[in-house]
Amino acid sequence: MSNQLFDAYFTAPAMRAIFCDVGRVQGMLDFEAALARAEARVGLIPAEAVAPIEAACKAELYDYPALAQAIATAGNSAIPLVKALGKRIAATDPEAERYVHLGATSQDAMDSGLVLQLRSAIGLLESDLAKLADALAAQAERHIDTPLAGRTWLQQATPVTLGMKLAGVLGAVTRHRQRLSELKPRLLSLQFGGASGSLAALGEAGWAVSGALAQELELTLPEQPWHTQRDRLVEFASLLGMIAGSLGKLGRDLSLLMQTEAGEVFEPSAPGKGGSSTMPHKRNPVSAAVLIGAATRAPGLVATMFSAMPQEHERSLGLWHAEWDTLPELCCLVSGALQQALLVVPGLEVDAARMRANLELTQGLVLAEAVSIALAQKIGRDAAHHLIEQCCKQAVREGVHLRAVLGANAEVSAQLSAAELDRLLDAAHYLGQARRWVERAVAEHTQFSR
Amino acid sequence: MSNQLFDAYFTAPAMRAIFCDVGRVQGMLDFEAALARAEARVGLIPAEAVAPIEAACKAELYDYPALAQAIATAGNSAIPLVKALGKRIAATDPEAERYVHLGATSQDAMDSGLVLQLRSAIGLLESDLAKLADALAAQAERHIDTPLAGRTWLQQATPVTLGMKLAGVLGAVTRHRQRLSELKPRLLSLQFGGASGSLAALGEAGWAVSGALAQELELTLPEQPWHTQRDRLVEFASLLGMIAGSLGKLGRDLSLLMQTEAGEVFEPSAPGKGGSSTMPHKRNPVSAAVLIGAATRAPGLVATMFSAMPQEHERSLGLWHAEWDTLPELCCLVSGALQQALLVVPGLEVDAARMRANLELTQGLVLAEAVSIALAQKIGRDAAHHLIEQCCKQAVREGVHLRAVLGANAEVSAQLSAAELDRLLDAAHYLGQARRWVERAVAEHTQFSR
Amino acid sequence: MSNQLFDAYFTAPAMRAIFCDVGRVQGMLDFEAALARAEARVGLIPAEAVAPIEAACKAELYDYPALAQAIATAGNSAIPLVKALGKRIAATDPEAERYVHLGATSQDAMDSGLVLQLRSAIGLLESDLAKLADALAAQAERHIDTPLAGRTWLQQATPVTLGMKLAGVLGAVTRHRQRLSELKPRLLSLQFGGASGSLAALGEAGWAVSGALAQELELTLPEQPWHTQRDRLVEFASLLGMIAGSLGKLGRDLSLLMQTEAGEVFEPSAPGKGGSSTMPHKRNPVSAAVLIGAATRAPGLVATMFSAMPQEHERSLGLWHAEWDTLPELCCLVSGALQQALLVVPGLEVDAARMRANLELTQGLVLAEAVSIALAQKIGRDAAHHLIEQCCKQAVREGVHLRAVLGANAEVSAQLSAAELDRLLDAAHYLGQARRWVERAVAEHTQFSR
Amino acid sequence: MSNQLFDAYFTAPAMRAIFCDVGRVQGMLDFEAALARAEARVGLIPAEAVAPIEAACKAELYDYPALAQAIATAGNSAIPLVKALGKRIAATDPEAERYVHLGATSQDAMDSGLVLQLRSAIGLLESDLAKLADALAAQAERHIDTPLAGRTWLQQATPVTLGMKLAGVLGAVTRHRQRLSELKPRLLSLQFGGASGSLAALGEAGWAVSGALAQELELTLPEQPWHTQRDRLVEFASLLGMIAGSLGKLGRDLSLLMQTEAGEVFEPSAPGKGGSSTMPHKRNPVSAAVLIGAATRAPGLVATMFSAMPQEHERSLGLWHAEWDTLPELCCLVSGALQQALLVVPGLEVDAARMRANLELTQGLVLAEAVSIALAQKIGRDAAHHLIEQCCKQAVREGVHLRAVLGANAEVSAQLSAAELDRLLDAAHYLGQARRWVERAVAEHTQFSR
Repeated sequence: MSNQLFDAYFTAPAMRAIFCDVGRVQGMLDFEAALARAEARVGLIPAEAVAPIEAACKAELYDYPALAQAIATAGNSAIPLVKALGKRIAATDPEAERYVHLGATSQDAMDSGLVLQLRSAIGLLESDLAKLADALAAQAERHIDTPLAGRTWLQQATPVTLGMKLAGVLGAVTRHRQRLSELKPRLLSLQFGGASGSLAALGEAGWAVSGALAQELELTLPEQPWHTQRDRLVEFASLLGMIAGSLGKLGRDLSLLMQTEAGEVFEPSAPGKGGSSTMPHKRNPVSAAVLIGAATRAPGLVATMFSAMPQEHERSLGLWHAEWDTLPELCCLVSGALQQALLVVPGLEVDAARMRANLELTQGLVLAEAVSIALAQKIGRDAAHHLIEQCCKQAVREGVHLRAVLGANAEVSAQLSAAELDRLLDAAHYLGQARRWVERAVAEHTQFSR
Repeated sequence: MSNQLFDAYFTAPAMRAIFCDVGRVQGMLDFEAALARAEARVGLIPAEAVAPIEAACKAELYDYPALAQAIATAGNSAIPLVKALGKRIAATDPEAERYVHLGATSQDAMDSGLVLQLRSAIGLLESDLAKLADALAAQAERHIDTPLAGRTWLQQATPVTLGMKLAGVLGAVTRHRQRLSELKPRLLSLQFGGASGSLAALGEAGWAVSGALAQELELTLPEQPWHTQRDRLVEFASLLGMIAGSLGKLGRDLSLLMQTEAGEVFEPSAPGKGGSSTMPHKRNPVSAAVLIGAATRAPGLVATMFSAMPQEHERSLGLWHAEWDTLPELCCLVSGALQQALLVVPGLEVDAARMRANLELTQGLVLAEAVSIALAQKIGRDAAHHLIEQCCKQAVREGVHLRAVLGANAEVSAQLSAAELDRLLDAAHYLGQARRWVERAVAEHTQFSR
Repeated sequence: MSNQLFDAYFTAPAMRAIFCDVGRVQGMLDFEAALARAEARVGLIPAEAVAPIEAACKAELYDYPALAQAIATAGNSAIPLVKALGKRIAATDPEAERYVHLGATSQDAMDSGLVLQLRSAIGLLESDLAKLADALAAQAERHIDTPLAGRTWLQQATPVTLGMKLAGVLGAVTRHRQRLSELKPRLLSLQFGGASGSLAALGEAGWAVSGALAQELELTLPEQPWHTQRDRLVEFASLLGMIAGSLGKLGRDLSLLMQTEAGEVFEPSAPGKGGSSTMPHKRNPVSAAVLIGAATRAPGLVATMFSAMPQEHERSLGLWHAEWDTLPELCCLVSGALQQALLVVPGLEVDAARMRANLELTQGLVLAEAVSIALAQKIGRDAAHHLIEQCCKQAVREGVHLRAVLGANAEVSAQLSAAELDRLLDAAHYLGQARRWVERAVAEHTQFSR
Repeated sequence: MSNQLFDAYFTAPAMRAIFCDVGRVQGMLDFEAALARAEARVGLIPAEAVAPIEAACKAELYDYPALAQAIATAGNSAIPLVKALGKRIAATDPEAERYVHLGATSQDAMDSGLVLQLRSAIGLLESDLAKLADALAAQAERHIDTPLAGRTWLQQATPVTLGMKLAGVLGAVTRHRQRLSELKPRLLSLQFGGASGSLAALGEAGWAVSGALAQELELTLPEQPWHTQRDRLVEFASLLGMIAGSLGKLGRDLSLLMQTEAGEVFEPSAPGKGGSSTMPHKRNPVSAAVLIGAATRAPGLVATMFSAMPQEHERSLGLWHAEWDTLPELCCLVSGALQQALLVVPGLEVDAARMRANLELTQGLVLAEAVSIALAQKIGRDAAHHLIEQCCKQAVREGVHLRAVLGANAEVSAQLSAAELDRLLDAAHYLGQARRWVERAVAEHTQFSR
């Protein structure tokens, strides 16, 4: 009774592989194998017990439907897995079976196993974010001088460049990469506390085992086990939500630029991509839909992680459970959005001519600011604003170009010459710091990637 | 790469069956078959086309991995399915293939297919809610006279009864059933509009086909297609969230009553259920965990459905997509919570003796109100409150029973006789309308179930 | 230290008045006054006590900064208010003071007071929704034959009418009104339970007082007090969220239609409305911003109400508190969205000529479906789809009108005459059931409003 | 029509002062004054214009009801404020008025003004978090050897110490402080882009003004203006949510420990604090309620900030608006939770005797693990687990202490001597690394605070 019809569309296969059942079980088994090695290293268990334990710590050896049923009775995934693991070891080496999971509790296996999965997930994210940043940087530089209408409140405002728009996304991606590198040492942290977090079951050896286990798993050793202090996970979930949000903004803009009435930028075409069953001419923004969809779903999933923070005492019931499917789902959603962004950004189809044509839609009004600002320096801001507002209204009312109205207006002409007006109404002369914004975002990216 | 390890614990198999890939595809195929029948009924397509179309509308005939891949290119699930359906029909009856999906758009198949799934889901919910209400009513009546401490702010207050507590849940369940019956005609409504909602592709026949199709599917015919008016779905999602919330309250209370320090009520035991891997004596509230977990996850999922409401124009991109996995997930989560509630409520293990013992924990303080109220009628509320507050503090300070302090206090004794004090401090005499609350909730339930 | 800068923009004054501090306090005082009347009616307290209590139950008599400080110590708003009320009464009639708040608990006053506020809020909502429905019906009928491009995935699809678009919103509003009428008896329900919900403090009289109190307040008498069964409030919050979502959809569409590149519909202009500080020609959709803003904020607030459902035992700490500011905020946000919708809908500025011009933007492609469907009936759906797809691509490639390509295509011409092609490419002939959708939505509205 | 009844309870006065209307307006005015200084520094405007502009940039000079009304027409707060500012300056120095807000757009003033407010808010947070960390460290050290029952799934598990519990919160607080220091350079960043973000209105001077303005405001200069890249704000909102969550966990644990049935730890008492209107003996956890309440409300507010990320093009409508009240509300809620935590943590009332008594509630069962682990080393984990499980069940069944059952059991006695059993069942010998966890958390705190 699977539910995977939309997986290829909404998620990336590599991320799904990390969080599939086998991945989850392997995470816990990696913990158990490392625990045996660590306990052997500190002399707590015999060295001979390690090999048989390790041999059984392979996820493909286990019966998943049986595990799923047993989880429903046990209330977590580690109890039945450790039982099955013990049984398997006992079948070949009953002595070794004594040393499985020694001193650990279910949550140790589940949380540390999860952290191992998250380390793999972070590897994918780092790689995808780096590739996306490269692609954004390349496109931002390619279109550094491509003007199009800036839009505020969905109405045309003064011109910007496509490069500057894409550099804005690049800036966000670079910040996300910084955040990821900052949170990694906090997140990739061992959870190992035994029944209530004190490691009492291991007696004096507890501390040494902790250290050895962290080394075996290449995780940091936290100041204390974090079974009910979940901020590490929530911080990561928040970053995933932010990535989804930034990609959602990219998708939103892309879908707006692809509108029939705008037609300025398009997702790269592919055979059959975005076809409509009844409108053969349409090319739907099917990648943007994934970006927007992920940005719509992420906030609720992130909120669940926040809501699950006040976990009771030394192990929660219910709040902890609420995390189990939520964080993997968030990872998969973001992987899917990144997958689509990596399809779209390098292959963007840009119609610069349409951009220029659209800049003329208002018959000069989008450059009214240029004139207003120039005029303000001569007659004051309010007066200038009022005067240009009148001219704009006149241009609209009479259906003529703003240049004509301005040229014919005595008050304006008294302040600005015809040549000045021509220059002020040329979009290419009104791009301000747009080039610099691209250069700065690219430089920041280059420096981070070094 | 499946992700089903926690399915048996968190969700009910019958609900998963409705929303699995096969269920989703069958929903759309049921729409396509009914469309063919409807169009034949109104004479739009030849009657002979119906049988071959119907024959191909069986979900088990399709290649799901291929569909999943094609969805990633098409941007929805109906385009590739309708293509595959057409191909299959064409192989045996090329003439019939002409009449597949005639006049419909992808969203018609997806939304109406979803509504058919939701009708099945509602069937399960109605049945589970009815069973749960019966179980709650039976338990409320069984424990109609079982006193335990009422707790406000997690501190013992005046006594209540277990029956009254359970009747509170019963009341909520009955209201949820009322809500479900009220929303059904709104939700179980045909979506059929063609490319942009006008049914223009069917010309004059559009209206007749609509009516026939609604009849075929036994759905109501809405005032107009609802492709971007999603309130019907959101209303249902909200009800699911409310059910999760009410069950979460049940789970929260249960887990609190099961605390080692309370020990008043327990989930029914079962072999291995709730065992701890390291603490053999523990019996964890594994069912309550599911109830609380669902109540923790539902708000975020419901919020996603609300966030997806402002869908653009005649078909959204992204917001619509955000619904596809969210609503099924919510249905499955609630089904799982109901499944656990149905395990727990009929089998509740009640320790009435412990309840009585706990009522004595405060040495009479939980009945201070009884005395305070009686006293207030004689010396005024503030004075009485103040006097009893002093007596309570004295009882706490000296570690004696409130009865002793009251008996020794001159001001109190001036107003209340020893016999009055004895009666006032007996919990069995201070249950107020508790019986009535049970009777009323059961009566309401009985009337609704009739 | 007030925070009201955006109140006039985001909320309606009448709703703010209901939920301001004075409104909140008056709700509780109305409860206290009614309680005194009810207790006098059943003979529990002397009739003479009523007048002095009622006289003191006027919100303007109290010191709000003092109340706010006392709340921080007491943990709820009723304790300090009842104290202040008692003191005020005692000053003039110490005897009457004995009978204030008799048998009630803080939550009784707070929750029942809230319900009284919600009744006023519902009055406003009903009135605003009725006015909005009238306005939508009028506009839908006015524009019943005004064609514009339908847009799916933000790309032009087949034509629809403005009337049909507005009728879609009308349908949602009518359903919201139905929902409101259905939930009212559940929501407008007395909360009266005393310390733990049993009304024990009132002894035998509890039931009679309950009934009399419900009558005094004109509230329904619930099956039992609902102090920790919060579904009634959550249901209402959900409806508020749905209204916000439907208005958000209206705002989203409006803002898209107002885009410089579309220019089809505008918010009514008003002096200074939507002006930009630097772009004098702009007219920003400032009302749509409120509609979208409310739809963006409502899901999180609604989710909070859901998250607060699992309230512990007989009174929650923290979850109950989470409701106090959240539900009023939601009411105010929705009131503000309605206020803006009522400004916008009756005054919509419609540019039907621009709509027709935009329908020509694709040079016939938006009517490709009409041709495709006609052709499908002759040569099969896939073949027709493929052929028209080719023609559309050719039209795009060569920059010519689809009509020209179709006319020149032998396969097409073999099936469709020139006259048929002309008719198929005329938007006015391709509106399907658009009129009917308007008529049905208006009829439903008329029937509900009767 | 204010709404401040719960402000003193739920929020801190210093934070409210930052985000009150005057604070908001002053933030924008500080931006305008700094802009004038910056533009004078680079020679864009005359030096004489600065003083009159600065003189008018005092929030107390403005008419707030008038501003609120004008905002409703303008759609943002900067337009009417800049107008009022201009008018005020013009009244005394018409020449200076020309140079107000030059080259800036409304969002520049609003966003940069907000950042200035957030800088003040961060100052408060840093100070409160530092104080809370100190208090937690002091209490953790004070109770480093105070044993109490660890509770998992709300059932008693093996012992922990109160110090270790508090050190867990300390660890989270230290991480939050690290996060805050990491995000500050990203968040405290100038927003200055003019109409569409290019600063075109300032011509060549734009870059120099940017740099001077960032210096004047002591903000970092971002790679480009971030008007529609909102990750900086969302990152901060997430941190606020995490702080709320960690405090919610503290509040949840505290409220559980305060339960009548546990009675181990109490909020410090204060006159009238947490009194019940009808139960004079109760002392409600009124501070914990605020901690839990904030943790319940924060997720929805944080989710709103995430939902508002996909802002369109160069300025959003609606999504931007959704932030305006949400982020301040989150700041205030967290300030209120910190305020309560700072009341509670230093004054915690600890009943160590009750903790010891509660550890005996299970008659030795909470130390069953100690025995089980010891036994596992001799007879294997499963066998030991099974044997101890049987003994535990027997102890429960017969109502006797586990020590008695173990001593009488032949299998157990064969492996463990009476002296070993005695030692194993003494909680003081089973605290594992609890001391170390405290020491490490305190060391981490000390190092961070250096």
